Amino acid sequence: MSREDFTVTPWHVEGNIDYNKLIEQFGTERISEQILDRLEKITGDIHFMLKRGIFFSHRDLNKILDTHEQNNEFFVYTGRGPSGNTHIGHLIPWVLTKWIQDKFHTNVYFQLSDDEKFFANKDITLDMVSRFTYENIIDFIALGFKPHNTKIIINTKNIGNLYPTTCQIAKKINLSNIKAVFGFTNDTNIGMIFYTALQSAPCFIENKPVLIPLGIDQDPHFRITRDVAPKIGKIKPAIIHGMMMPSLMGVNNKMSTSKKNSVIYTTDSPSTVKNKINKYAFSGGQSDIKLHRKKGGDPKIDISYQYLRMFFEPNDSKLKRIHDDYTSGRLLTGELKSIAIEKINNFLEIHQQRRKEAVKYMKEYILQ
Amino acid sequence: MSREDFTVTPWHVEGNIDYNKLIEQFGTERISEQILDRLEKITGDIHFMLKRGIFFSHRDLNKILDTHEQNNEFFVYTGRGPSGNTHIGHLIPWVLTKWIQDKFHTNVYFQLSDDEKFFANKDITLDMVSRFTYENIIDFIALGFKPHNTKIIINTKNIGNLYPTTCQIAKKINLSNIKAVFGFTNDTNIGMIFYTALQSAPCFIENKPVLIPLGIDQDPHFRITRDVAPKIGKIKPAIIHGMMMPSLMGVNNKMSTSKKNSVIYTTDSPSTVKNKINKYAFSGGQSDIKLHRKKGGDPKIDISYQYLRMFFEPNDSKLKRIHDDYTSGRLLTGELKSIAIEKINNFLEIHQQRRKEAVKYMKEYILQ
Repeated sequence: MSREDFTVTPWHVEGNIDYNKLIEQFGTERISEQILDRLEKITGDIHFMLKRGIFFSHRDLNKILDTHEQNNEFFVYTGRGPSGNTHIGHLIPWVLTKWIQDKFHTNVYFQLSDDEKFFANKDITLDMVSRFTYENIIDFIALGFKPHNTKIIINTKNIGNLYPTTCQIAKKINLSNIKAVFGFTNDTNIGMIFYTALQSAPCFIENKPVLIPLGIDQDPHFRITRDVAPKIGKIKPAIIHGMMMPSLMGVNNKMSTSKKNSVIYTTDSPSTVKNKINKYAFSGGQSDIKLHRKKGGDPKIDISYQYLRMFFEPNDSKLKRIHDDYTSGRLLTGELKSIAIEKINNFLEIHQQRRKEAVKYMKEYILQ
Repeated sequence: MSREDFTVTPWHVEGNIDYNKLIEQFGTERISEQILDRLEKITGDIHFMLKRGIFFSHRDLNKILDTHEQNNEFFVYTGRGPSGNTHIGHLIPWVLTKWIQDKFHTNVYFQLSDDEKFFANKDITLDMVSRFTYENIIDFIALGFKPHNTKIIINTKNIGNLYPTTCQIAKKINLSNIKAVFGFTNDTNIGMIFYTALQSAPCFIENKPVLIPLGIDQDPHFRITRDVAPKIGKIKPAIIHGMMMPSLMGVNNKMSTSKKNSVIYTTDSPSTVKNKINKYAFSGGQSDIKLHRKKGGDPKIDISYQYLRMFFEPNDSKLKRIHDDYTSGRLLTGELKSIAIEKINNFLEIHQQRRKEAVKYMKEYILQ
């Protein structure tokens, strides 16, 4: 794999992702200034993840705004493959989901694809997946979702709700379609082959248009859903695509639960966060202070800066000052790391408190 | 297809089936005199469908008898793909299931694969399948099953009970396995590809050995189940294989719901039965009475005789007299048909009365 190569599929993200190329490869639309203006007129403001291009691409977002402007409702659907504990990268689409819910007063469905993660990893048991499912749900609820307009779907538990629609979808997808989109082979198990129909099903859980905020790696599933929708008399799901939060190791890799020191978990203690950022967060700074003062750092490849930009510093002018100070050399790597550590720990302190509350009310959220 | 050729798969049965060859092809065991003796010692008698070789083949039936003799329990599982109304051929494995239940005091599970029939036929809707499901269930219950030891599984309704086990199974079956056993191609929809895992799941619904009476066309599904079972720490299902009841048109075809005049439905009126047998039932008799008196008829290819043998004349000595009289020419085709009509209508009169009762109690049987 050359430096410029990258892979983005639902089960494998690797390399230095060129998001512009992904828009072309996947055939999606860029989130334009025009559509952001349209959004702002409706919502009064624009979430910083949209403004900063963390969510950069979409399918049919205009149609969702049409729906809203015609005084019709839509709903929001997102999810998580519970392959491990929650890290801060997982929260990105959930935070945007919450913002959309608040601005548009929509119902939200959150799918836990425990079956998929069981199929995808030969060494994992359903019990192991179940533990992660529970942990991930707690983090989702902790972001402020309320049970009256938010329902959680655990595939193995809520299959009864999903299965008839899943069957309608599965009947319209053949083996060629699946092979073309996911590159499956003769060694692929039949659970993996069928699974995409189950990830499609919540798109039609209400008889309204749906908007799906997700990491762009999940787009292939919904490309299939969008092909199938008209064949079963349904509306194509609309999608907003987010970037992958990079691992501590550098911008060339998405955070992955499988590499413990490459990610910050939502349950990490302040000292763990401090240690991980100081020890592992890739720096865009120069090799010594003198050179740094002279040439400045590169925020584009600096993980501490990227975490602030993508998640932990919502204030644009504060972020700009950090950016400019770092670029000019006024701000040293150690200082930038300190800012990141403080911001992350502030967030996690509140989040971890909310997690304790979330545990108590979890059952109210599960779809019946 | 030459005269000797035949096809037996879960979705296609055609030709003059050579059941001896099937035993070889499928790698099953013949139901021997020895195993029948063993059964008789336990049960006190042998059901005529076993004695006459209507059930002719098995896998691990000896192990089931071992289980019983060691004072351990097993359970029984059979099913129906609800692609149409019930015809008398469908009842064969259900009648044997009832006999086994009565003799061994086992629980029985009856699976309706409504999902499979929906996947398999592009022109059928889930609503259409649902109507057949309901009709088939009524016929099953009418055979005398009781709700305290008999549970009905409708796949789309009871998927919640089956899905976690289905996932365990699906993870151990890859695309090569499925292609090898069922001959699926790139045009096959992913519902069909996944489905076999769902037909396997009831094999493990109780933590006991299972015995499955079925038409031998369904064996391929359970060949897969038997491969998977040890991989998920479960006991291989045991199977008793039955013959296919031939269509009215002749012994070269299994009864098929898709050809209305080739089958006798459980809801046919006495006059319909009379008309179908007289008009369509293939005769093994000679072309005129004189020749028939001289050369006699051939019961092997005579549908009226075959229906008596397979289902409607349980009394061996009565059947033998019919056989001998027909072979010798004493019994004419018209007379043989009259016997069959009377026997079938006697059965259906009681069965249809029981169907009316069954409707009332159906809900008690559905797995919760």
